[in-house]
Amino acid sequence: MKTIVAFSGAALLSLPASAQPIREADRTKLLQTMDAKAAHYGDLSRRIWEFSEVGYKETQSAAALREELEAAGFEVTAGVAAIPTAFVASSGSGKPVIGILAEFDALPGLSQFDVPDRKPRVEGAPGHGCGHNLLGVGAAFAAISVRDLLAEKKLPGTIRVYGTPAEEGGGGKIYMARAGLLSDVDVVLTWHPGDRNQSGLGTTLANINAKFRFRGQPAHAAASPDKGRSALDALLLMAHGVELLREHIPAETRIHYIITKGGEAPNVVPDFSEIYIYARHSHMPTLDDVWSRIVKCAEAGALATSTRMEMELVNSVYNTLPNDALAALVDKNVRRVGGFKYTAEEQAFAERLARSFPPSQDPLPIGSQEGVQAPREGVSSSSTDVGDVSWQLPTSALTAATFVPGTPGHSWQSTACAGMTIGRKGMALAAKTLALTALDLFTDPAQVKAARESFDKRRAGHDYRSRVPADQKPPLTYRDK
Amino acid sequence: MKTIVAFSGAALLSLPASAQPIREADRTKLLQTMDAKAAHYGDLSRRIWEFSEVGYKETQSAAALREELEAAGFEVTAGVAAIPTAFVASSGSGKPVIGILAEFDALPGLSQFDVPDRKPRVEGAPGHGCGHNLLGVGAAFAAISVRDLLAEKKLPGTIRVYGTPAEEGGGGKIYMARAGLLSDVDVVLTWHPGDRNQSGLGTTLANINAKFRFRGQPAHAAASPDKGRSALDALLLMAHGVELLREHIPAETRIHYIITKGGEAPNVVPDFSEIYIYARHSHMPTLDDVWSRIVKCAEAGALATSTRMEMELVNSVYNTLPNDALAALVDKNVRRVGGFKYTAEEQAFAERLARSFPPSQDPLPIGSQEGVQAPREGVSSSSTDVGDVSWQLPTSALTAATFVPGTPGHSWQSTACAGMTIGRKGMALAAKTLALTALDLFTDPAQVKAARESFDKRRAGHDYRSRVPADQKPPLTYRDK
Amino acid sequence: MKTIVAFSGAALLSLPASAQPIREADRTKLLQTMDAKAAHYGDLSRRIWEFSEVGYKETQSAAALREELEAAGFEVTAGVAAIPTAFVASSGSGKPVIGILAEFDALPGLSQFDVPDRKPRVEGAPGHGCGHNLLGVGAAFAAISVRDLLAEKKLPGTIRVYGTPAEEGGGGKIYMARAGLLSDVDVVLTWHPGDRNQSGLGTTLANINAKFRFRGQPAHAAASPDKGRSALDALLLMAHGVELLREHIPAETRIHYIITKGGEAPNVVPDFSEIYIYARHSHMPTLDDVWSRIVKCAEAGALATSTRMEMELVNSVYNTLPNDALAALVDKNVRRVGGFKYTAEEQAFAERLARSFPPSQDPLPIGSQEGVQAPREGVSSSSTDVGDVSWQLPTSALTAATFVPGTPGHSWQSTACAGMTIGRKGMALAAKTLALTALDLFTDPAQVKAARESFDKRRAGHDYRSRVPADQKPPLTYRDK
Amino acid sequence: MKTIVAFSGAALLSLPASAQPIREADRTKLLQTMDAKAAHYGDLSRRIWEFSEVGYKETQSAAALREELEAAGFEVTAGVAAIPTAFVASSGSGKPVIGILAEFDALPGLSQFDVPDRKPRVEGAPGHGCGHNLLGVGAAFAAISVRDLLAEKKLPGTIRVYGTPAEEGGGGKIYMARAGLLSDVDVVLTWHPGDRNQSGLGTTLANINAKFRFRGQPAHAAASPDKGRSALDALLLMAHGVELLREHIPAETRIHYIITKGGEAPNVVPDFSEIYIYARHSHMPTLDDVWSRIVKCAEAGALATSTRMEMELVNSVYNTLPNDALAALVDKNVRRVGGFKYTAEEQAFAERLARSFPPSQDPLPIGSQEGVQAPREGVSSSSTDVGDVSWQLPTSALTAATFVPGTPGHSWQSTACAGMTIGRKGMALAAKTLALTALDLFTDPAQVKAARESFDKRRAGHDYRSRVPADQKPPLTYRDK
Repeated sequence: MKTIVAFSGAALLSLPASAQPIREADRTKLLQTMDAKAAHYGDLSRRIWEFSEVGYKETQSAAALREELEAAGFEVTAGVAAIPTAFVASSGSGKPVIGILAEFDALPGLSQFDVPDRKPRVEGAPGHGCGHNLLGVGAAFAAISVRDLLAEKKLPGTIRVYGTPAEEGGGGKIYMARAGLLSDVDVVLTWHPGDRNQSGLGTTLANINAKFRFRGQPAHAAASPDKGRSALDALLLMAHGVELLREHIPAETRIHYIITKGGEAPNVVPDFSEIYIYARHSHMPTLDDVWSRIVKCAEAGALATSTRMEMELVNSVYNTLPNDALAALVDKNVRRVGGFKYTAEEQAFAERLARSFPPSQDPLPIGSQEGVQAPREGVSSSSTDVGDVSWQLPTSALTAATFVPGTPGHSWQSTACAGMTIGRKGMALAAKTLALTALDLFTDPAQVKAARESFDKRRAGHDYRSRVPADQKPPLTYRDK
Repeated sequence: MKTIVAFSGAALLSLPASAQPIREADRTKLLQTMDAKAAHYGDLSRRIWEFSEVGYKETQSAAALREELEAAGFEVTAGVAAIPTAFVASSGSGKPVIGILAEFDALPGLSQFDVPDRKPRVEGAPGHGCGHNLLGVGAAFAAISVRDLLAEKKLPGTIRVYGTPAEEGGGGKIYMARAGLLSDVDVVLTWHPGDRNQSGLGTTLANINAKFRFRGQPAHAAASPDKGRSALDALLLMAHGVELLREHIPAETRIHYIITKGGEAPNVVPDFSEIYIYARHSHMPTLDDVWSRIVKCAEAGALATSTRMEMELVNSVYNTLPNDALAALVDKNVRRVGGFKYTAEEQAFAERLARSFPPSQDPLPIGSQEGVQAPREGVSSSSTDVGDVSWQLPTSALTAATFVPGTPGHSWQSTACAGMTIGRKGMALAAKTLALTALDLFTDPAQVKAARESFDKRRAGHDYRSRVPADQKPPLTYRDK
Repeated sequence: MKTIVAFSGAALLSLPASAQPIREADRTKLLQTMDAKAAHYGDLSRRIWEFSEVGYKETQSAAALREELEAAGFEVTAGVAAIPTAFVASSGSGKPVIGILAEFDALPGLSQFDVPDRKPRVEGAPGHGCGHNLLGVGAAFAAISVRDLLAEKKLPGTIRVYGTPAEEGGGGKIYMARAGLLSDVDVVLTWHPGDRNQSGLGTTLANINAKFRFRGQPAHAAASPDKGRSALDALLLMAHGVELLREHIPAETRIHYIITKGGEAPNVVPDFSEIYIYARHSHMPTLDDVWSRIVKCAEAGALATSTRMEMELVNSVYNTLPNDALAALVDKNVRRVGGFKYTAEEQAFAERLARSFPPSQDPLPIGSQEGVQAPREGVSSSSTDVGDVSWQLPTSALTAATFVPGTPGHSWQSTACAGMTIGRKGMALAAKTLALTALDLFTDPAQVKAARESFDKRRAGHDYRSRVPADQKPPLTYRDK
Repeated sequence: MKTIVAFSGAALLSLPASAQPIREADRTKLLQTMDAKAAHYGDLSRRIWEFSEVGYKETQSAAALREELEAAGFEVTAGVAAIPTAFVASSGSGKPVIGILAEFDALPGLSQFDVPDRKPRVEGAPGHGCGHNLLGVGAAFAAISVRDLLAEKKLPGTIRVYGTPAEEGGGGKIYMARAGLLSDVDVVLTWHPGDRNQSGLGTTLANINAKFRFRGQPAHAAASPDKGRSALDALLLMAHGVELLREHIPAETRIHYIITKGGEAPNVVPDFSEIYIYARHSHMPTLDDVWSRIVKCAEAGALATSTRMEMELVNSVYNTLPNDALAALVDKNVRRVGGFKYTAEEQAFAERLARSFPPSQDPLPIGSQEGVQAPREGVSSSSTDVGDVSWQLPTSALTAATFVPGTPGHSWQSTACAGMTIGRKGMALAAKTLALTALDLFTDPAQVKAARESFDKRRAGHDYRSRVPADQKPPLTYRDK
């Protein structure tokens, strides 16, 4: 990772003489080979599911992935970007450079057995409610598989797996990109567990989140409340200010918060309080305006109460920038791979699980995982640090039906699916789609070029600049209470 | 009023050769003479009661008083201090100079017949719910009576009646003192209608009051609320901030407000709002601190809502500075004058009126007006621009039982009493007490000196500086809606 | 209007023997005839523009329209539905019955000369900022024109003009429909001034609006604030509750309010306060849920402050129910009529006026009035009592470019346009379109049937029940301060 | 403790024949004996100071006191009133029965070495910032000492030490009295560490405190906030309601709160929140009214936000009822014992410690501990479960200067003093005063009678009924986080 090679269109134009062309039969064989190895990767995903490590604490999970990649001959650098659990695994050489993102962090409180009724493995413990155990393994599975074929065919090109920790609010990719680890990449491939099979053309919500802390003057609340300056009052006023904002910002904005510290003892005028607040919008400049007004609310809280305010920006991610060319390419490939059927057991599991789903508008039915949905523009309500990558490099998106159709996000139901065969089937679908897509990019320079052009077109007129301060270190302890 | 003579102790030391000493019989005769003229002044008080003119609008009331004083030979200057209804009436010459304050403004909404049941003379119109019709006439009555005796006895000294408009929130005395009209006065005498006979040794609440106005950005509230910046939001947040203050200021502080403008039409994001707020405390530096924090709340309201704030300070008065020597002198004289009995009709009126009184802790009973209460330290909940005078000159205080014992302040019940014989009897008691007190001051330099010393002692270490901005004009239209 | 004839499909099936068919040339001639009369109706619209009478006060405006219709031979009933300015004008007989809605109320504060710079005719006075002077006259113009042709051709059918007062928040149509005045109508035709030519297929926002009043206990705010129960506190708390709601209702909901009474005098704990609040959503059941939660906020305000709450529902309208068949029919006809060109003077007026427009996303350009926009599904941010009609009868919609493209709604700019030639041209376009559409309905029973079927389909599964209480009288004084 | 003997005046009238009268010399000797034992009790107080156990967790502290009393021949019953650390130690027999209250709980967060600069023994650990290590030991010291003299003189009467846990908010005495443990007591003696020597005639603040919990509906805060019902919103609105209350309750009331739970994760609409709130006033019926309005604020919070509220009353204590006769008796005795001088080291400690004191109005100077202050009526800002005892039995009060004059309550400075010689000296003064007072009560029935009469007089017309629900168990875990 020492030398950073600038993107060069010229690099894409020629193939070495020894290289063999890829034929349709090669693709078929690739998929067959992957089917044969699916059980192995399914087992690995289960191990990481059992680790269930939260953001920046994914020691065992990252190690398991690294070992798998090293065993497959990838050159792995661990602890990159000053993050112990981040890594880069690379194989092959030359252009193009294709990166696949591998996430592996779990979510607090979502521990669950692989059964269709609420039953935590460990009460209150983390669980893979976002399916990142599948995500990371699927990425490695795709990378290893396509690399094997490249090697066999003596095709040039570099395939990388980026082990990106703490997607859930820790922003690992921001720091990894900031460290220059992605600088020579041509195209980034991603996928995400979900309840359908679909190439991604939509966007997500950019977000900024921070802890605002107020510091006042303590005093005995019965003896001399007039001597106190309440940090809690400041927070209450800030919260009211934020509520008053809601009418006067674009209606689709999201602002939400909790009070993480509201005083030590009722006898004492609180001299410290803390609120943890998120704002989200799919358009970063709009979000900036909203955010600046939230900051003013915090300042106003301090001003009115004679207290002091300080802000710690915890994380900020961009919305994802869709890539039309890659969306079309991934769509083609996921359709080639096709959906999958449930076994009788899986069907029973799905039906039972679905009974626990909250009402939702027009969910896809069970069985829809047998098909593929068309890519669609639009805004999802999620946020991801893939957004930051997508504003720096052409980035694809793919959802695979690792969860029973209708499964809510970040739920014990997701955790359950992510630990059993439905999750594994979805993961295999994704890995195969990514492998085919990488293969296309390795063998057809026009595809890489189209991805770049799509990227340039959507991005035109916009800068990328993360709202995470330039000197901020990765928040390695953000999951500590 | 052209030449201002500085206070000089020497001026008190000698009497002209022609002057006759005042004997006890002269005092007795003075009181008898005043009894004979009480009906005349009672009638005058009734005329002003019927005018019921609010602050700075007391055209007829001031004219009636001026005419009475001019007819009695006082030299009257009207329209002083740039206030049409303010006047100074002066008689006699030389030292000492004794001023008596005469108020005559009515209160909005307290119109009432002189009957013991709620019955407005004009629905919604002003009424003399603070008894200032009696206050002003009593002052003139005392001044004319003592002047007559001074003249008869060829005693030196100047007696003045200050016609001070708009005591109820308009601060007339602040502007009159600021204009230098009181500069050569040695002692100021005052009285106030009330439900008891008592020389005053307590203090009142200093206050500061202002209108805070917010200006935002209008927008159609259904079509584009995000384009609007709500001035009403700013006000709501300021109000919340002020409520949060209450715990953290001295508990005996008072803050109270109304919303005078809260938007034009529900369809439009309000671009203008206004709150009218008072703060009060008996200690001006404490009040200053509270006030500065209220201003911060207003600034915070604007800050959090991206609106602008402006403040118009409407009025501010000082707490009254008690004068121990004058309190003792007035106490002696009010005891000489003594209380008064009700007729059977007055007794019936009082008993019926009392049935309408709200519950109160330990009110004086009907009949207590026959006696005199001892002076008492303490803080009343009222505010008056007499406070501003009392920090500039030795100032006495006296309450007379013009109202049935237990009558709440600023009530239709007060208006009723101020228009009938009970009010007149109280006024006569006050006028006689003031006349005796002035006589003491005119004839005993030691009393003037003692008043000054008491003043100097209580005031030591404090500055007087009105919180009304130095360049502010009298708010002649403050009673306009 | 005594006998109510139920809708009957059979009535549409046969024509009298004497009737003459309508040919294409008849339509052409109709349009030519209308062109010849456009100046007359333009002048009438100008007279009503000058009256500028607000809701339920439109005495002269309604009279002018009634006189025009009576002069044209319509049978006019004034003062219907207990509303002095409401009327029904009817001509012809038999089926079908086609009603055209005629509004004529002005908006407070939007007085303006017919010039492209802000210049009120009477400062602070009402103005036709919604162009209802054009709306009402255009309706009469269409009705008279089509009736003349029907009569000439001896065609059966009844044409009605409904003079519907107080569209701007007074809900005249609700009371007129409730009085049964529309019961035998087959199809209702409407149009509205706007900045484009377009048949309507969208919907509007249903709304509910009310005044919430709080009653507490007054007390002197300095002497005994603990004895008071503040009605203003109740309102402040309710407002905070409403702000907290915003996050937890559908984001596209609108809630907006002003404070109409916030206390009488700062010295007195307010015993009365009033808030005027609107809620809007395009789906009435959703709005009902939001509204019930707003009412709870008001109850909570009273509960927490020991005050009492009462609600006066001022008005409520439904969203409009689009009618697919009528939208297609109107679209066909407005395209036949076609847009219009500006003269050089109008062009200059438009360009100057446009400089005063606030920034807007993608406004139509000047010149777009020469064309016709396609009908479009969607939700506008406006509310209208046409909504209530549209849930009771098949109702068409049409916008005509009476205003310069980009003109904001309810603006002085609209008033200016509504008083000059651009407004007249748009009105003529609308009248001609309505006349053609009525003609189609009178002569083609299938069109009436299709309108009914479209109505039945969209309305299926929904009840219509106005949220205005069944016993509520028209709020004839709602525009009084 | 099985048989409960009702109070009987007759029991006080006769002494057994063997009893010896107490002479002045006996008192002198008692004090000398106590001086000789002061070091022993000082050491015991230091052990408990080092235990620093918080309310209901005082296992070692209670055991140390029990062992001391058992070793001295008291009959000790541990674990009374279903409280493991509560005990009753009794000695002697017959009437009168004199109880001395012994507290021994520490305060969270006030760990401190016995040095005059802030230096915690264990960071964040509890400390004896209220000096209860001295309080409990001083009570035992007094009881053992007076019992020894009673026994020597063969005087009848029962002396008891009540080991009362969790004075700091746990209300141990309420449950002990409720269990009937005090039913046969004639007079209760108490003392408390402080910064002066003074018999107590004032009162304290009754208080009620509770946790209000709100339960809403969780939802993903970005994906479907409209599906959520925020328990945090309910709490914020309740808090605003409480702030609005402040103006409209007696100004000397105290209300103060902290937010103990304000949401789990910013991504989730909080379905749980908790506020811990205190209200205090020296008059229980006034407090009841305030409390009922706080409860309404909580109900209003739930009502406006469609959430549910539940209240857990944590504790409630009465204000103390002063006893005039006992106050005079204790005053006499504390004056006999007299104040004490500091050594040079203590003086240096005191002077250095005083530099860390916050500014205070008119604190007593260092050296004032050499004298005794006169008893004084008035309201302190503290609250104690001694209040509940004082409304059930004649109860004395005494402050001893265990802390440097000016030391703030509940401070690390108090902890420091309570662990060194100044604390011990104050404790000895208190123990001696209590011993003399008990001796007076044992030997002079008139004193017991007078105490009872004083009690009956002050209590006349009032009921005692703890606001702690009758079926509530002692909150043994109230100090757990």
